[in-house]
Amino acid sequence: MINYPNGKKISESNVTHHISASRRGMTLEADINQTNEYYLSTDKAVIHKKPTPVQIVHVDYPKRTAAKITEAYFKVPSTTDYNGIYRGKYIDFEAKETASKTSFPFSSIHPHQIEHLKKVLQHGAIGFFIIRFKAYDETFFVEASKIIPHYLDDQKRSLSYKWFKEEGILIPFGLSPSVHYLKVIDQLYFRRSV
Amino acid sequence: MINYPNGKKISESNVTHHISASRRGMTLEADINQTNEYYLSTDKAVIHKKPTPVQIVHVDYPKRTAAKITEAYFKVPSTTDYNGIYRGKYIDFEAKETASKTSFPFSSIHPHQIEHLKKVLQHGAIGFFIIRFKAYDETFFVEASKIIPHYLDDQKRSLSYKWFKEEGILIPFGLSPSVHYLKVIDQLYFRRSV
Repeated sequence: MINYPNGKKISESNVTHHISASRRGMTLEADINQTNEYYLSTDKAVIHKKPTPVQIVHVDYPKRTAAKITEAYFKVPSTTDYNGIYRGKYIDFEAKETASKTSFPFSSIHPHQIEHLKKVLQHGAIGFFIIRFKAYDETFFVEASKIIPHYLDDQKRSLSYKWFKEEGILIPFGLSPSVHYLKVIDQLYFRRSV
Repeated sequence: MINYPNGKKISESNVTHHISASRRGMTLEADINQTNEYYLSTDKAVIHKKPTPVQIVHVDYPKRTAAKITEAYFKVPSTTDYNGIYRGKYIDFEAKETASKTSFPFSSIHPHQIEHLKKVLQHGAIGFFIIRFKAYDETFFVEASKIIPHYLDDQKRSLSYKWFKEEGILIPFGLSPSVHYLKVIDQLYFRRSV
């Protein structure tokens, strides 16, 4: 059984797999970017993915053409990938997908990102994770406050798929927006629909 | 005469130039980064500079060493450089410095950034600019709502230094934090000091 944001519980077989099939191959990042563009163009929210942090070492400045970076390295992100504003509230989240059928490994989340989410929650943010199990094409919304204590528990290296089914909220499938996470936020934080 | 956030007006000659002299050579970006680190470490706010947006074209994956980006280009930013949360409010701003003694040229602000600030203001953000006149070592806080109409006025290419003295608020100098812009935000939006 899956928790939907409207509180109804439906069995997995009712999930509209024809929609998810058409999206197959789209990464979670692509889905979220499309969703954020939809939110932006419909004036629902302003939420952006931050650029990938890169340490630039060398740049060529050829005449008459654009500056070309010829040596750079990926940096460890010090924050989450996504933030912005919705209904006057500061929104902050990290999105990850896993190929595992059984659990989500903590190794894909960096300690700095947990520290960052803890901090923004203290300041009144709406902070969360969007976690996709690719094997089931299921994308869960989980409040950061639910994941953080498990992450900080030295005994734990992952959270089970079962845990996500119980503690997470399945984000509704759709074509546009494809990952309609504001619907979950409305339910959890505003108790009104978009 | 300069507007200070506490409402007192003092003449330029009273500005503590011995502090500003010691900071000479520090870029505005370095000053703001230091300030944001101070806010983060003292739990005042969580505000970060976004990474420079870069279009990555080619990456080498040598064995046993870190992935090396060998071809990349700078992208036009679609948002402002800084955002975060303070007292539960979404904060969003752009920072620019100019060598001009007479005016701040609009050419250094990208239309996308104005569009972005307009949008976040609509959603309830605290949106502003931090503009430094290097010639005077003066750093002004200006609400985005004050600059946007001038920027969108086709007849205008810049705003005069005089305009900033009248419409901006001089951000207090200091060693740590060096650009204490939250003090101005408190004055303008919360009417309490940090």
